[in-house]
Amino acid sequence: MPTTIDLSLFEGTAHSPSLASLRRSAAGGDARIRDFCIPVNPYFPTPALAARLRDRLDDALRYYPSTNAALARELSAALGLDPAGVVLGNGSTELISFINLLWVADSLAIPVPTFSRWTEEPAGCGKRVHLFPLRPEPGFALPVGEFVQFVRRTGARVAVVCNPNNPTGTGLSRAEVLELADELADLELLVVDESFIDFACEGPPPSVADEAGRRPNLVVLKSLGKNFGLHGVRLGYAVAHPDRAAQLRRALPHWNVNGVGEVLITELADHLADYEASRRRVVRDTAAFAGRLARIDGLTTFPTRANFVYVRLAAGLDGVELRNRLLTRHGCLVRECGNKVGSGPEYLRLACRPPAEAAVLEDALRETLAELGG
Amino acid sequence: MPTTIDLSLFEGTAHSPSLASLRRSAAGGDARIRDFCIPVNPYFPTPALAARLRDRLDDALRYYPSTNAALARELSAALGLDPAGVVLGNGSTELISFINLLWVADSLAIPVPTFSRWTEEPAGCGKRVHLFPLRPEPGFALPVGEFVQFVRRTGARVAVVCNPNNPTGTGLSRAEVLELADELADLELLVVDESFIDFACEGPPPSVADEAGRRPNLVVLKSLGKNFGLHGVRLGYAVAHPDRAAQLRRALPHWNVNGVGEVLITELADHLADYEASRRRVVRDTAAFAGRLARIDGLTTFPTRANFVYVRLAAGLDGVELRNRLLTRHGCLVRECGNKVGSGPEYLRLACRPPAEAAVLEDALRETLAELGG
Repeated sequence: MPTTIDLSLFEGTAHSPSLASLRRSAAGGDARIRDFCIPVNPYFPTPALAARLRDRLDDALRYYPSTNAALARELSAALGLDPAGVVLGNGSTELISFINLLWVADSLAIPVPTFSRWTEEPAGCGKRVHLFPLRPEPGFALPVGEFVQFVRRTGARVAVVCNPNNPTGTGLSRAEVLELADELADLELLVVDESFIDFACEGPPPSVADEAGRRPNLVVLKSLGKNFGLHGVRLGYAVAHPDRAAQLRRALPHWNVNGVGEVLITELADHLADYEASRRRVVRDTAAFAGRLARIDGLTTFPTRANFVYVRLAAGLDGVELRNRLLTRHGCLVRECGNKVGSGPEYLRLACRPPAEAAVLEDALRETLAELGG
Repeated sequence: MPTTIDLSLFEGTAHSPSLASLRRSAAGGDARIRDFCIPVNPYFPTPALAARLRDRLDDALRYYPSTNAALARELSAALGLDPAGVVLGNGSTELISFINLLWVADSLAIPVPTFSRWTEEPAGCGKRVHLFPLRPEPGFALPVGEFVQFVRRTGARVAVVCNPNNPTGTGLSRAEVLELADELADLELLVVDESFIDFACEGPPPSVADEAGRRPNLVVLKSLGKNFGLHGVRLGYAVAHPDRAAQLRRALPHWNVNGVGEVLITELADHLADYEASRRRVVRDTAAFAGRLARIDGLTTFPTRANFVYVRLAAGLDGVELRNRLLTRHGCLVRECGNKVGSGPEYLRLACRPPAEAAVLEDALRETLAELGG
């Protein structure tokens, strides 16, 4: 399906252009694009929950949403959390902005490549970002001891670790994160961004959110958009010691969670079993997807604990050209990582999709890599 | 319809509890409550637009929304604005938070009573809020010259005026606002919050948004939620000089406008004629509503240029008791203004609803005021 799409939309942003803007840019105005760029949970919301959201949309949009504290009580009741330690955000991105405003005084230390909000946001405010480079040899796994030494050397009072990490997909065990938290207990702040942790394994995710109440410097971030396949809702939350949570809640704009987010929170308890089934299915899909990608010539895949796979192109292959051909000739949007600090144009992040769609990408990759001489 | 509703929800907040939380608190769980508290446009979205929003909901929620700049271009094309000067917010409330963070260094001056985010947000950050008391004798109209002198006396470098003002409903003409802007051209910042200006009159609203491009200290705020009857979407925008707009855009969290907001923006151009008809109808409804309220014994009404009416109870009447009886015995939620700085429990803000609903409130008010001895 050769398609005319405005490729200049990829320029001038640290993120990918939105799917909607790419579709609108296409000749004809509504190109069929398969999204392997943004990792979502394709099995959630279920049709039943989607129908509930549509049914309740009019009321959700017409009235002011409830307060952050009231919504935190609803969410905590559904998820078994202490509401005093839970703060809702307009996406975890808003929480990143306010964590940076409130608690990153001078600098932070973070392994890279990583989610670019964590590097750009502090840098944009004139704060130093100490970058700990993850290496391909151990599959981009974070060596906890070396990272602790790095934090000490830089003198940073704030450290951030994404578990699993984005875009590499590498993950730490719960024991490793707690070791890190013990070692860095004297810092002002340790953020563990668990945006993708529900896709780490079929068993219980290795979250440390339950530790936040007793570790005053720990903030655990969760992204409901990423878990629930609902990035457009803008809904995330932080779990922290109640004193720290109260400070964050006071700083956030009033009514920061929108009405659709409120509906989602109030519906959640009734749909948790479906959600659990969906996330396990994504874990299984991703394992199969990674296995098949590993058999494609010209690609090196790295181990993943998230719902996407980080891959490297063979030497001499141009990731931008590959991305553009996949999009314009095959309608497959992938994340080329040339604008991610600590990554490069030879790396792609490939979000897992259901097997039939993944097969389209696999065929397109094989064909395009062969054309490009991989 | 006597209803058991948890009246303690009114305590401990500067705002009213959300309609959803009041409904959930009712015995039986879903009380019929008519909302005269939050002023909305009841004729918008039209059924056609509401259907479009429902149809596009799945895509809107599944994908990341477009960037602020991209959405500003879409909105500006629909409304005939310069996109370089337009910044979108997660509700105008988010813009108030960031205006306060970025540009209110020490203090601001503002007429009261007013929208409480403008007084609480700076005070919560330890900044001084210089309150210029509006007086009932001239119907709470703002005397521009006196306010300018007040700003000078306080030494404030930032002034905020809501036009029309909330909760008083009083409005300035365009000439008066420009006189104010001329007089205060040396301030760091003058914010004109035009959240309700589309309901000022049937003719073109007296906005000064077109002046922001040539006045570097002027920021004009707009609330799409308040205009469109869609508070739950969380969508507002600021119009400012391009340099100032760029600074605000950089500071805001990424992806701050949610997917439903994006759909609304992209649908807007096709529904502007319906919107124009809806806002004129609200203007006419409000004039009739105010006229009928003025004939109720025990109430003094003040002139309004917004879609709500500010009223004072006769001496000796208790606004909290009146509010509670209206809610629990008649299912009518009104805004009692006892927790608004510069107002008091003898004042109510009554949002205009379509005539049939307004008649229910008028009857309920008559009956309850008679019971209370008004």
